[in-house]
Amino acid sequence: MDLRRLRELLDGVRRGQTPIDDALAELKDLPYADLGYASVDHHRTVRQGAPEVILGHGKTAAQVVGIARELGRTGQNVLVTRLDAEKAGAVCSALPELKYVELSRTGTIERAPIAPLGTSPVALVSAGTGDLPVAEECAETLRMLGVGVERVYDVGVAGIHRLLDKRDVFERASVVIVVAGMEGALPSVVGGIVAGPVIAVPTSVGYGVSFGGLTALAGMLSSCAAGVVVCNIDNGFGAGFAAARILRARERY
Amino acid sequence: MDLRRLRELLDGVRRGQTPIDDALAELKDLPYADLGYASVDHHRTVRQGAPEVILGHGKTAAQVVGIARELGRTGQNVLVTRLDAEKAGAVCSALPELKYVELSRTGTIERAPIAPLGTSPVALVSAGTGDLPVAEECAETLRMLGVGVERVYDVGVAGIHRLLDKRDVFERASVVIVVAGMEGALPSVVGGIVAGPVIAVPTSVGYGVSFGGLTALAGMLSSCAAGVVVCNIDNGFGAGFAAARILRARERY
Amino acid sequence: MDLRRLRELLDGVRRGQTPIDDALAELKDLPYADLGYASVDHHRTVRQGAPEVILGHGKTAAQVVGIARELGRTGQNVLVTRLDAEKAGAVCSALPELKYVELSRTGTIERAPIAPLGTSPVALVSAGTGDLPVAEECAETLRMLGVGVERVYDVGVAGIHRLLDKRDVFERASVVIVVAGMEGALPSVVGGIVAGPVIAVPTSVGYGVSFGGLTALAGMLSSCAAGVVVCNIDNGFGAGFAAARILRARERY
Amino acid sequence: MDLRRLRELLDGVRRGQTPIDDALAELKDLPYADLGYASVDHHRTVRQGAPEVILGHGKTAAQVVGIARELGRTGQNVLVTRLDAEKAGAVCSALPELKYVELSRTGTIERAPIAPLGTSPVALVSAGTGDLPVAEECAETLRMLGVGVERVYDVGVAGIHRLLDKRDVFERASVVIVVAGMEGALPSVVGGIVAGPVIAVPTSVGYGVSFGGLTALAGMLSSCAAGVVVCNIDNGFGAGFAAARILRARERY
Amino acid sequence: MDLRRLRELLDGVRRGQTPIDDALAELKDLPYADLGYASVDHHRTVRQGAPEVILGHGKTAAQVVGIARELGRTGQNVLVTRLDAEKAGAVCSALPELKYVELSRTGTIERAPIAPLGTSPVALVSAGTGDLPVAEECAETLRMLGVGVERVYDVGVAGIHRLLDKRDVFERASVVIVVAGMEGALPSVVGGIVAGPVIAVPTSVGYGVSFGGLTALAGMLSSCAAGVVVCNIDNGFGAGFAAARILRARERY
Amino acid sequence: MDLRRLRELLDGVRRGQTPIDDALAELKDLPYADLGYASVDHHRTVRQGAPEVILGHGKTAAQVVGIARELGRTGQNVLVTRLDAEKAGAVCSALPELKYVELSRTGTIERAPIAPLGTSPVALVSAGTGDLPVAEECAETLRMLGVGVERVYDVGVAGIHRLLDKRDVFERASVVIVVAGMEGALPSVVGGIVAGPVIAVPTSVGYGVSFGGLTALAGMLSSCAAGVVVCNIDNGFGAGFAAARILRARERY
Amino acid sequence: MDLRRLRELLDGVRRGQTPIDDALAELKDLPYADLGYASVDHHRTVRQGAPEVILGHGKTAAQVVGIARELGRTGQNVLVTRLDAEKAGAVCSALPELKYVELSRTGTIERAPIAPLGTSPVALVSAGTGDLPVAEECAETLRMLGVGVERVYDVGVAGIHRLLDKRDVFERASVVIVVAGMEGALPSVVGGIVAGPVIAVPTSVGYGVSFGGLTALAGMLSSCAAGVVVCNIDNGFGAGFAAARILRARERY
Amino acid sequence: MDLRRLRELLDGVRRGQTPIDDALAELKDLPYADLGYASVDHHRTVRQGAPEVILGHGKTAAQVVGIARELGRTGQNVLVTRLDAEKAGAVCSALPELKYVELSRTGTIERAPIAPLGTSPVALVSAGTGDLPVAEECAETLRMLGVGVERVYDVGVAGIHRLLDKRDVFERASVVIVVAGMEGALPSVVGGIVAGPVIAVPTSVGYGVSFGGLTALAGMLSSCAAGVVVCNIDNGFGAGFAAARILRARERY
Repeated sequence: MDLRRLRELLDGVRRGQTPIDDALAELKDLPYADLGYASVDHHRTVRQGAPEVILGHGKTAAQVVGIARELGRTGQNVLVTRLDAEKAGAVCSALPELKYVELSRTGTIERAPIAPLGTSPVALVSAGTGDLPVAEECAETLRMLGVGVERVYDVGVAGIHRLLDKRDVFERASVVIVVAGMEGALPSVVGGIVAGPVIAVPTSVGYGVSFGGLTALAGMLSSCAAGVVVCNIDNGFGAGFAAARILRARERY
Repeated sequence: MDLRRLRELLDGVRRGQTPIDDALAELKDLPYADLGYASVDHHRTVRQGAPEVILGHGKTAAQVVGIARELGRTGQNVLVTRLDAEKAGAVCSALPELKYVELSRTGTIERAPIAPLGTSPVALVSAGTGDLPVAEECAETLRMLGVGVERVYDVGVAGIHRLLDKRDVFERASVVIVVAGMEGALPSVVGGIVAGPVIAVPTSVGYGVSFGGLTALAGMLSSCAAGVVVCNIDNGFGAGFAAARILRARERY
Repeated sequence: MDLRRLRELLDGVRRGQTPIDDALAELKDLPYADLGYASVDHHRTVRQGAPEVILGHGKTAAQVVGIARELGRTGQNVLVTRLDAEKAGAVCSALPELKYVELSRTGTIERAPIAPLGTSPVALVSAGTGDLPVAEECAETLRMLGVGVERVYDVGVAGIHRLLDKRDVFERASVVIVVAGMEGALPSVVGGIVAGPVIAVPTSVGYGVSFGGLTALAGMLSSCAAGVVVCNIDNGFGAGFAAARILRARERY
Repeated sequence: MDLRRLRELLDGVRRGQTPIDDALAELKDLPYADLGYASVDHHRTVRQGAPEVILGHGKTAAQVVGIARELGRTGQNVLVTRLDAEKAGAVCSALPELKYVELSRTGTIERAPIAPLGTSPVALVSAGTGDLPVAEECAETLRMLGVGVERVYDVGVAGIHRLLDKRDVFERASVVIVVAGMEGALPSVVGGIVAGPVIAVPTSVGYGVSFGGLTALAGMLSSCAAGVVVCNIDNGFGAGFAAARILRARERY
Repeated sequence: MDLRRLRELLDGVRRGQTPIDDALAELKDLPYADLGYASVDHHRTVRQGAPEVILGHGKTAAQVVGIARELGRTGQNVLVTRLDAEKAGAVCSALPELKYVELSRTGTIERAPIAPLGTSPVALVSAGTGDLPVAEECAETLRMLGVGVERVYDVGVAGIHRLLDKRDVFERASVVIVVAGMEGALPSVVGGIVAGPVIAVPTSVGYGVSFGGLTALAGMLSSCAAGVVVCNIDNGFGAGFAAARILRARERY
Repeated sequence: MDLRRLRELLDGVRRGQTPIDDALAELKDLPYADLGYASVDHHRTVRQGAPEVILGHGKTAAQVVGIARELGRTGQNVLVTRLDAEKAGAVCSALPELKYVELSRTGTIERAPIAPLGTSPVALVSAGTGDLPVAEECAETLRMLGVGVERVYDVGVAGIHRLLDKRDVFERASVVIVVAGMEGALPSVVGGIVAGPVIAVPTSVGYGVSFGGLTALAGMLSSCAAGVVVCNIDNGFGAGFAAARILRARERY
Repeated sequence: MDLRRLRELLDGVRRGQTPIDDALAELKDLPYADLGYASVDHHRTVRQGAPEVILGHGKTAAQVVGIARELGRTGQNVLVTRLDAEKAGAVCSALPELKYVELSRTGTIERAPIAPLGTSPVALVSAGTGDLPVAEECAETLRMLGVGVERVYDVGVAGIHRLLDKRDVFERASVVIVVAGMEGALPSVVGGIVAGPVIAVPTSVGYGVSFGGLTALAGMLSSCAAGVVVCNIDNGFGAGFAAARILRARERY
Repeated sequence: MDLRRLRELLDGVRRGQTPIDDALAELKDLPYADLGYASVDHHRTVRQGAPEVILGHGKTAAQVVGIARELGRTGQNVLVTRLDAEKAGAVCSALPELKYVELSRTGTIERAPIAPLGTSPVALVSAGTGDLPVAEECAETLRMLGVGVERVYDVGVAGIHRLLDKRDVFERASVVIVVAGMEGALPSVVGGIVAGPVIAVPTSVGYGVSFGGLTALAGMLSSCAAGVVVCNIDNGFGAGFAAARILRARERY
């Protein structure tokens, strides 16, 4: 409900066309309609243009299937994240149209065409082979959100020349997403080279005092490169979604 | 040095105008010049259009004065962050042109006019009175980077109506920066309302298991609102710089 | 033993009816009888009106069966918590009357009718689908304690309108229990809306810096809403029991 | 604004007495009024019957004075918590009517009579001398909320008889608040004796692995006594407020 | 009160010499007397033969003086621990008989002669100069408890020969107390040499990942020498008291 | 080797009966023999009268068998701790004489009679059913070291009367060992009742902020009962060995 | 590319033999060639003389095989670390020439002879049986790097004589590597005996407050022996590589 | 004492020249003499050629003066570390020959000429201005140990070109010491460029999740550059001493 509808309602009341009790009933829901939520029945509100996202972890296969079917009735696209291979098997039995990618642990259903978002691609940088699952979760998220991706993989700081060789990719990127585990030093170096937005994603790659990604996370937050922002450990989805937020805002203002 | 200059140099060699040893000497520095760094002598490289930023914490007053004077010779603007009142007194004695703001613990020198960055303002949201120093550090950073700010202060989630009342501010903002301590719940609620980029800054406000801001930080990183990105504790400067990265990238692509 | 019995005893001694050695023997146990414990032989003393509660975790199936049978001899109801599915199978083979609910990981035996406790229901709020097992453990606990429950599920703060829509439930609840994982922001918002007692239960839902529920726990303890009290991570049983403490006290004073 | 006023407004529109633009202006604030907030201009919403509470920590003396004066204009009582002695001196200079208690670090202004809340007192238990500041912050909070207090101090578990001697106090209390530092074992013992609500407050008393109260906090949350609920470290105010929530709810249902 | 007194009381009742109400009054305190506590009015019950111990930390000078005076009335000795120099000055002004030792931060009053406890001394071992305050707190505690001490100071493991040279001291000691900071390795080596009881006390000496004594504490608890027991960080008092427990038990059985 | 043997050796050399090279060979081991080690070839030196102890965790079944056989050649008793059921099966196949107890996860071989140690038993107290494995590991250790045990199980502080009822056991014990998980409050209460040595063993029983035993451990170290000493989490073996150290020392001085 | 090639290139341009565009193309890669990296296509750059090292953990068997084959084409030796037995089976099926050692979890392929590095061996010391896997990973790394090893195993500090007996080994070693878990005290003792470089490797051996190796790590970093340097937990490979760095540098200066 | 002396002793006994009691007395100290310690009277054994090192932190000015004077009697050089300015004033009053450097917090006395150690200098790299105190502590340590130093300061990874420009310094260094705070990424990049030994020193520079140097420490230990070794936080002295260990070993083998 917006101001226009509110004025209509009041006009109806004034002209006696709308009984007061009807107006009361409609006004009772005003606060929520006024918030402008399009899909109030979903846990994580994702606005139009974006697929519905289901966090697979912590849900049973039956729950995932149920939510995906509910979305299917309205013709929406579906992205399931953190869906392990075993559960994916059960989900796919019930939903054969779900396309599962084991590396990224994501499942997707494309019912509607995906509208492109942004004019230049996002650069997706990763430090090592072990970071690929998180990077690819990010890539799948970006794909489902309509954002182009240019991958720059396996360019950890211990061989700094590999990174420096990719400056042209960084320069033409709208956003740079950096995925790294262990000491998580890569975003600091990238942040020193790139002038645009840099989103860092720590991964749980490493052992001992890598602390399951905490060291990389704290390192990225403590980065000596100014203005690097950070997501939760292994949260490739979040980084992709944040990039989409940046690109979506561009289109509006 | 760019490709144009490189071609000139090679032309000079081919035509015999440039001795090979001169060319060697110039090419020796090529890698770094090719990176496009304008001010290689500063700790945190800040590209043109941005003021030089000096982290006041951990430096003596004499060191702050020295770096600021060095910058002054090239006519650059200066932003000093985390400058406590006592040290600021000593710095101002030597640099009377430094304008100190105690609340934000920042000192600034404007020698050159600041070019505006972005067309719509950044919304700067804070949860409580104790978060003001961090929020104002962010505001000063944005001001020195040419970014407009619209403040939405004291709208913590325990009184959720105050926040909901400001949706119009969020809707017209290019970026929303949310500053909060204690449980740090504010970015989750904002992230559920706003479609554009949301940058969360945890503060060290609170006691007991607020853990000096760690609880707010971890809460923001764990946010159930998708795509919220996070800065280090009390890092208002970093959030402002990150917003400027987003706006700067817009102007380039 | 109370003062009345003590006076009787002393009277018996004075009148010579009670030998001094008999009085000595009875007085030896005085301290404990004077504490008024009804069921001294159970690990976690639960007073009359409440079922005996067995923590299934850390006990073998045989131990659970043995304790439940011991309780059976005195006609008490039984609640087993944290009973995983495999162990439940073994327990049910020996105790077919045990009713097992997999979602809440609870087993119950109702031998005696459950006396209702409280006149208005407890509102049981949860943030997401992953919080259901903990919420349902709480619900089963409340049911066995005779307390009515009104469920408000899947109303996380990232879609704040869903929560605000339920204010009428909160207003008529005697106690509000809020179950949430990840950043655990829900109790802060609820605490700002509700005037009565709010009990927060953090869950281990989430990953990375959710720290298995610690972030939600610390967030709830740091809540900017005054007077929110907190239970251990995933302790739905404890929250239910705490609500029953509140309602039980009402009936006594 | 409530339903009655809403109906009046609509009646006015229907009868043509209220211009639509006036109704629009009033309805614009409807969502928030409909939430039933009485004092929307205060950081931590405290409902009627309760004094306004100002967290002194993290605010300047001038800010404390400013907020207290603002409250004074509407005749409300004031409670300032975590107000250290030095800041209290400055505040009292400007607000001579503020009564400061150094032990509890609280300042209060009673402009209106305090309505009594609850019929039986709250038992306020503490383990040692070092816990007194937190216990007294709780006591001042209860006093300002109209709740009677019965103190049971210095009854730590290492001399368990002292505690057992006070069972009569526990039995007549509506709520038992237990304040303890070090290993924080007291609430477990109290919770085993008392059938009514038990609120535990860990304090930062202790050294070494007391971890500034974390050990007591974790011990209380892990308590083997069922249904004990817990507040943040040193949060005597929160415990008092939680007790008031319990007593206030009683009066409503 | 013991069984003898109880029988007397009952005899008095039977013979009519003791009115029932008098007996009731006396029996009311029975449970606690029956516990055998001699000094029920002191925070940390210390049995006969031991001086009363006052933890100076967290108490005001006035509180320390008050408790010490109370003890003085019954002629008991006094040991105040963790009494910093400034507070000690104020205490000594009021209690000139208090003997203060700055190194150990202890104050003592000897009103009664100290009964010797144990026939062979306790060996008190420390690793470095920085551990002396804790070691001397332990030594003062032992002295006030009547236990002889043989000091073996400055024998850290980095110069292992110094330690090995003292085996004769270890062999004749009834108990060995080992005080060490930094990595806390000393108790492991001592535990491998000594067959009798070894009590380890970690100190907060060190920096960085010494974590204020936590590393030494965890190292001592993880010791590869079997049967080494550990006290809280910097708790020299506790180690001395534990040694006295061992020696006191010897005298009883 | 002791001084007597050393004198004999030198006598042999002086009289020409012992060749110098033979004396050299024997003296080469002097330093270690002089330390009084009886069994230099074992990882954790256990002195005479004690069985050899093998930590089963982290060793393969073959390694456990190999070490046990090596000990068998010299007729020593064997105690294997932390031997899980599966590994025990493999070990027992090779060593049928090994007696395995699943509850305590210990395996023992008694080749020599066990000399009794101490005249009064050790009281072994545990808080709940889940603590039994650790308590029984302690009991098996005490049994193999010749120490008598009196068990006091399932007496957690939430039902304090059960504990108080056992004061007679505590009073006649030479040492009291207290095994408890969750909040670990039991040693504080026991330490307030008992005058002799109290050894506390935290267990990993509990969930959430029990932190796998850390909360109990920290609580025990922070105990308000003076002179309670503590072992590593779940280290029932260490507590038993520490008790034996106390009793062994008694016999020597 | 080095200066000689750069001069050649410029000569070619001057003489007109090399077109400017060709020179530009070659100069574009100059910065990286100028860094002198021999094997730019490998994740962790290992210079000539060293085998390529593949971290097996976090890679699929197929990825390990693929990288190893790629290396095989250039005739390099291969070292795979952290390769568990199951994955090793799959790798060996595809690469029968890979020699797998289960204890050290390493796989190696020797295609080229290994050049010896250093003239005196590295002493490799370990505390207990459980530390062997890490020590042997280190030994395999040293072997593949051409460094001789002298093992000193099972010499934990609780039996200090075993260690002291090996001083001759320490004295002739070029580097001493000390591998220890639990309290990690061994490097402190070794560092006090040895004058040369000491590299400490904490292992995850232990339980409870061993914290998976953190206690050993922190103990080693806090060592009272000056100049002991430390690697990550269980990082035997890193310690071996660090020793090789020391020996390699010797050969160059 | 070595084997030669032992044989002499036995010869003396055999020939009757040495009384058995004299031989006994000498053999009693054998183990320790055999260790070959030159200066057994100092806490941290530092071998000849090195100055005595006094950790100033945790010692009183009087203690520092006392130890330094003791060393003075034997003509040794003195290095005092972690000596704050205030304490240094008191020390210098008593020891005017002590040269104090405030930046490095070190005091030195050169009584004997310092023998040079190593032929090529140590490269001492630091990331930012705030790391200077730690770097200079390291430099002073190296100077007192006779090691040459080449400083490479202020070359943090956010401006990677500054670092790459110094490759020639790294290539000629015998050891590279890298001092960095915040995210501590510098050693990873240096380790990828340098083939020789790299010693990393984390500093406590930074705020928020820099955790007083822990993030840098963990990052360095988790470094993706193989064979980087690490010292405790802010331990510039340790790094210098470790470099001297490497150089000293070179001279011996």
